[in-house]
Amino acid sequence: MLIDLNSDIGESYGAFKVGQDEAIIPYVTSVNIACGYHAGDHGVMAKTVQLAAANGVAIGAHPGYPDLQGFGRRFIPMQNEEIYQAVVYQLGALQAMCKAYGTEMKHVKPHGALYNVAAVNIAVAQAIVDATFDVDPQLILYGLSGSELVKAGERSGLRVAHEVFADRTYQKNGTLMPRTDVNALIHNPEVAANRIIQLVKTGTIICHTGEEIQLKADTVCVHGDHAEALLFVKKLRERIQAEGMTLKEVGAH
Amino acid sequence: MLIDLNSDIGESYGAFKVGQDEAIIPYVTSVNIACGYHAGDHGVMAKTVQLAAANGVAIGAHPGYPDLQGFGRRFIPMQNEEIYQAVVYQLGALQAMCKAYGTEMKHVKPHGALYNVAAVNIAVAQAIVDATFDVDPQLILYGLSGSELVKAGERSGLRVAHEVFADRTYQKNGTLMPRTDVNALIHNPEVAANRIIQLVKTGTIICHTGEEIQLKADTVCVHGDHAEALLFVKKLRERIQAEGMTLKEVGAH
Amino acid sequence: MLIDLNSDIGESYGAFKVGQDEAIIPYVTSVNIACGYHAGDHGVMAKTVQLAAANGVAIGAHPGYPDLQGFGRRFIPMQNEEIYQAVVYQLGALQAMCKAYGTEMKHVKPHGALYNVAAVNIAVAQAIVDATFDVDPQLILYGLSGSELVKAGERSGLRVAHEVFADRTYQKNGTLMPRTDVNALIHNPEVAANRIIQLVKTGTIICHTGEEIQLKADTVCVHGDHAEALLFVKKLRERIQAEGMTLKEVGAH
Amino acid sequence: MLIDLNSDIGESYGAFKVGQDEAIIPYVTSVNIACGYHAGDHGVMAKTVQLAAANGVAIGAHPGYPDLQGFGRRFIPMQNEEIYQAVVYQLGALQAMCKAYGTEMKHVKPHGALYNVAAVNIAVAQAIVDATFDVDPQLILYGLSGSELVKAGERSGLRVAHEVFADRTYQKNGTLMPRTDVNALIHNPEVAANRIIQLVKTGTIICHTGEEIQLKADTVCVHGDHAEALLFVKKLRERIQAEGMTLKEVGAH
Repeated sequence: MLIDLNSDIGESYGAFKVGQDEAIIPYVTSVNIACGYHAGDHGVMAKTVQLAAANGVAIGAHPGYPDLQGFGRRFIPMQNEEIYQAVVYQLGALQAMCKAYGTEMKHVKPHGALYNVAAVNIAVAQAIVDATFDVDPQLILYGLSGSELVKAGERSGLRVAHEVFADRTYQKNGTLMPRTDVNALIHNPEVAANRIIQLVKTGTIICHTGEEIQLKADTVCVHGDHAEALLFVKKLRERIQAEGMTLKEVGAH
Repeated sequence: MLIDLNSDIGESYGAFKVGQDEAIIPYVTSVNIACGYHAGDHGVMAKTVQLAAANGVAIGAHPGYPDLQGFGRRFIPMQNEEIYQAVVYQLGALQAMCKAYGTEMKHVKPHGALYNVAAVNIAVAQAIVDATFDVDPQLILYGLSGSELVKAGERSGLRVAHEVFADRTYQKNGTLMPRTDVNALIHNPEVAANRIIQLVKTGTIICHTGEEIQLKADTVCVHGDHAEALLFVKKLRERIQAEGMTLKEVGAH
Repeated sequence: MLIDLNSDIGESYGAFKVGQDEAIIPYVTSVNIACGYHAGDHGVMAKTVQLAAANGVAIGAHPGYPDLQGFGRRFIPMQNEEIYQAVVYQLGALQAMCKAYGTEMKHVKPHGALYNVAAVNIAVAQAIVDATFDVDPQLILYGLSGSELVKAGERSGLRVAHEVFADRTYQKNGTLMPRTDVNALIHNPEVAANRIIQLVKTGTIICHTGEEIQLKADTVCVHGDHAEALLFVKKLRERIQAEGMTLKEVGAH
Repeated sequence: MLIDLNSDIGESYGAFKVGQDEAIIPYVTSVNIACGYHAGDHGVMAKTVQLAAANGVAIGAHPGYPDLQGFGRRFIPMQNEEIYQAVVYQLGALQAMCKAYGTEMKHVKPHGALYNVAAVNIAVAQAIVDATFDVDPQLILYGLSGSELVKAGERSGLRVAHEVFADRTYQKNGTLMPRTDVNALIHNPEVAANRIIQLVKTGTIICHTGEEIQLKADTVCVHGDHAEALLFVKKLRERIQAEGMTLKEVGAH
């Protein structure tokens, strides 16, 4: 019973500091590093790559829409070919930075609005898959569990990681409850941990109707950008380990 | 007697069009493609890489300072380590774009103010050399003939290309006459061609004092961004070929 | 019988040159100057404001979405309040630039995607109207003839200018034929001139079904960004003047 | 005995949060708001203007070099005329934002590298002065006490405010000890408060040689961007008030 904990880091920009990368990194097994489009720049990326390498976590790219002001959270209208090019650009930049600092880029996880669009739009999903494959077919593609993105990755021969969220509830069809729903978020780390443990053990989770649904889970996304989030992660990690499960990057599963 | 003609292309940005890439590319043997910092973006890069591949010219990266508004012509104060990181980022992005479109990045030529600083500043030169080497030690480094940049490249084991300018005059010590000098520029393509031909044949050029000086020349930089520049290139190319010299990318010398 | 000819200018950015501002400006009576979001920067704006003042044309702001890479042609998701703030920012910047160079900003015309959204979205239209009013209630608001933008301006007490396009055809309901339609564009300047002349004289235009429709026309948008467009403008201007109509900025109607 | 306490605020950008504006603002009498070049954007500016208005502090513009990545701390080579234009642009944007939210821009204080250059370079100082004057001659110009900037302002008829730093030591000639000096910074708020109190009462301060020097002080710059800085400000304010001095914006002195 193996599970990966991943976190988005390297989201500062120049003098603008975001997140608590040093605090979260000891608790995760893989990280997704911003590549300069929605956050991050060469300096932040270099520092973050070194931090990740020093902590022995798997490094992945976290490409987003070219939208610094919107932090990649806004949908930017782009042709699918342009999305392909934007992802290639970002993956290449991080890949070279990893090589320059003696380490390696192992996976790709789209950020923000691009992640959300790719979860439901087959053509966008395919553009991201193609970009990933063309940069390096050994890259593992992280996407929302059961989404169009992981399906497209599987069809194209990429290794994929189904991602679940410890702090989110699910609908009966396996999609996330919208954030607008009052029950969308799970604030209690014990509850969250129990859900993740059941998921890893049985491949099922209780959805918002109270029914058990099937859900693939290779990696769990955790946030570490504020004090409460960090406590959540620690608790989750403790509970997972107490259950005898092994925390390992996806590539080692 | 082999010589390379290189040109800076791919310097548009989004809807902002710069240069006449399609017009110049048939006349050169290598191109330097902007990487998104002073010009170029993923879309422009993708289009330019494809144009270069279709024309069979050698593709190189043209990294610059992160300064779109100043087109990389302004000196931006950056630590040497940050210059290293900025160059790694840009090389990686273009390298991946080349791979994605089925071709290969073969050389690196810094742009604008970065080129000028690297010609005289040993530490900046070394930062660029290190970045180039760490991304791919097979990359050929283009720099001002006899400059600190090519010297640093040679010391570090990179293959280098000494670059000369067909439309510029030289001082006795082998450096370019400053643009502020009334004799800095050569407008007559015949004169320019004669100088380049002598240079390739004898390794010497007449400097502004009238004396012959030694000058290494592996590649000649040509501009194609306006109608007159294009005529200049055509004439230069015709004359070089009429002399029985062979135009070939540096890697094939 | 008064009509204004307006053109979008000042759309360069740093070293990236767009348009032929010097060529078009003698033929128009008002100009819309980009304000740094989709194009333009302080230097381009200053130069353009001086050019407009020297040519005696009315100066207006041409605010767009904050999207340099997309040239303001992409819809960027923004709350209405943020659109208000973005327009205030851009109007203030141009207003100060006009004052600094001894002239005055007299009107506002949204650019690209913002213009199109404001034509149909009442809330966006109102945000632009409010921004315009709050910066200076004397500003004239240009918008697509009959659109939600001009309606919102009228309701709020702004003077508005109904804008028509000489090179576009119209649907029966007074909206533009979509560019995707094969008959969307009028390439013949004589035909275009006849249509505009009829419009000014009778307040009607022949729509794509062949029927006459009512259409208000205070100002005609013309393009001058390439040689053919410039010829179009000259012909249009000649014909308008030959008909005895007077070309004058909207504020002097 | 009147003194102003000013602080730089509104230095976030989109989702990138910088500073603790809400925490510092109750303790100061004037604020300098970033205008979108080194930090700030329309949304941040609008929020900050409203915060300042609600707290009754004087609002000023904090224009910087166009360098978001470098946070305005890098020297960007620009012609003096371009500096003039860049300052006009930024002042206009904030002026309009103030008007839109029912308040007023009352002063100008250059940021970071621009502040430092303007303190010693007469031509740059004059460019900033001219921009300020041309946007609104009633604006008060804040600059380093005794610097070329305030001198240029005085010569041109602007009201100026000599700015001192509570946490910095001074050289015998009235300039700041360079930050590289081990004694450049004052960490003890009591010591800092005593120095400021003496300065306001007597117009003198003890410089690093132990001698008393003359120093004009209309406004004291305080930082509030981290917990310790905030404690420093509170202590300073308490001590100033305990001495019976009055904290008031410069315009009310």
